[in-house]
Amino acid sequence: MSSSAYRPAMTQARPEATRSVKAVDEYRNTRELNIAAERPLTIYLDRVEVVTLMTLGTQPELLTLGYLKNQGLIRELNEIKSVQVDWDVNAAVVTTFAEDDSWQEKLKNRTVTTGCGQGTVFGNIMEELEGIRLKPLRLKQSRIYELIKNLNRYNEVYKNAGAVHGCALCHDTDIITFMEDVGRHNAVDAIAGYMWLEGISGEDKIFYTTGRLTSEMVIKVTQMNIPVLLSRSGITQMGLDIAKDVGVTLFSRANGKHFLVYNGSEHIEFDVELPPKFSVAHTSS
Amino acid sequence: MSSSAYRPAMTQARPEATRSVKAVDEYRNTRELNIAAERPLTIYLDRVEVVTLMTLGTQPELLTLGYLKNQGLIRELNEIKSVQVDWDVNAAVVTTFAEDDSWQEKLKNRTVTTGCGQGTVFGNIMEELEGIRLKPLRLKQSRIYELIKNLNRYNEVYKNAGAVHGCALCHDTDIITFMEDVGRHNAVDAIAGYMWLEGISGEDKIFYTTGRLTSEMVIKVTQMNIPVLLSRSGITQMGLDIAKDVGVTLFSRANGKHFLVYNGSEHIEFDVELPPKFSVAHTSS
Repeated sequence: MSSSAYRPAMTQARPEATRSVKAVDEYRNTRELNIAAERPLTIYLDRVEVVTLMTLGTQPELLTLGYLKNQGLIRELNEIKSVQVDWDVNAAVVTTFAEDDSWQEKLKNRTVTTGCGQGTVFGNIMEELEGIRLKPLRLKQSRIYELIKNLNRYNEVYKNAGAVHGCALCHDTDIITFMEDVGRHNAVDAIAGYMWLEGISGEDKIFYTTGRLTSEMVIKVTQMNIPVLLSRSGITQMGLDIAKDVGVTLFSRANGKHFLVYNGSEHIEFDVELPPKFSVAHTSS
Repeated sequence: MSSSAYRPAMTQARPEATRSVKAVDEYRNTRELNIAAERPLTIYLDRVEVVTLMTLGTQPELLTLGYLKNQGLIRELNEIKSVQVDWDVNAAVVTTFAEDDSWQEKLKNRTVTTGCGQGTVFGNIMEELEGIRLKPLRLKQSRIYELIKNLNRYNEVYKNAGAVHGCALCHDTDIITFMEDVGRHNAVDAIAGYMWLEGISGEDKIFYTTGRLTSEMVIKVTQMNIPVLLSRSGITQMGLDIAKDVGVTLFSRANGKHFLVYNGSEHIEFDVELPPKFSVAHTSS
């Protein structure tokens, strides 16, 4: 716990995460199924439009905070007076104490970094990471298994409707917070917003994601100062390269007793006696 | 086939799609596994930097073409003199016949639209879709099954290394082209580039994706004038809402004999006699 106890005034806008709709299956039967919500949320900073995020919408205030922080638009939480989300107009209205009228000018010279590998200001980001070396966190295999077990209780929207990614901030075997969103980068940003608001630091945490370990996912956890990344999915070459540079321990394909450590296995104590087996099939995702 | 036979001069840069790396499994055994490549590709338009895309990199020229088209930066293929990709410097250099020196100015007033629900210029896009109504395509269940079977032969990188999305442009039961990328929007853009280059129109095609049917996926196929979207994964509320507005037929969770049609089931002829069954479990993705 690092930062102050200051909290901006915030709404608690909590719309439905799923909606029941009809679909026709292969038997031509009409079935009623739940699907994940997806809503546009336009962020306004002192009346200037910043961005529109397509989001599940269950934690819009935290998403807004995390987005502003991760984009480097606001440095300190106590600069923010209020975050007010109104789903009637799909807007998150952020007011700063400075009531700055120069955002238009500032935003002009800024390129939004985004998920899915489009729009990244690659040079700048790589420069920012230059020289960052995260302090490694010692881990025990037995505790990782316990954490994976605990994580299975979450992912509510996914279990109900699919089509969302889940992310969690974890400490040892505990899940501090779990966020789901239709955009995986939104889920990460919402966790960044939560950490900012609650004054939680990253250095002893584990970041879990149902999504893949691409360059941008590794970059985001590095910016959050979190030394361990645990994923159910696969990994890309640049995700691995960056993790090696900054020292993020990478667990990929974590599921039940299985995992693959692509970086940082020297920080893991293998304290579990597993039954022998013939081979582990490569499972893709 | 609509546009001219003109083709810009293009490189054929084909780097490796996977790399062999070592990982430590839960038995503490070191294993050699393939992971998907991920590379930054910076697009320059008449010497002005446009964007950096994180990509698998197997079809960089088509990705570049499709990106420029989908972003509305270049209207006609014959405005482009050449597309030259050089992986030594991770650059796609696009030269137009006009050798326009005003891109810097034009790009300033443009916001990049992107995948993963971050950075979307929502208002503009929704305005562009206003009044679009795609001509429905009649489909037979038996032909869809045949297509799904044919699609199983593709997804090479995914089968080898995971961590990529696949997209295909299909006609009836044939796969015209199949693209994989670490970013699903890159795979879509590469197909748009292919259609542009080959003068292929969308109105009688089916678009397949391994990814979810979110708003942005439905918007992209609408812009490509393709009336049918077939996905292995789930669907979001806005993906469905937009599909209903523009008339895109949506197959979700297509796998083997299963599918769920969320919109446009009236255009499907159910011509397959399936064995009776008790129930279909809801499978998430």
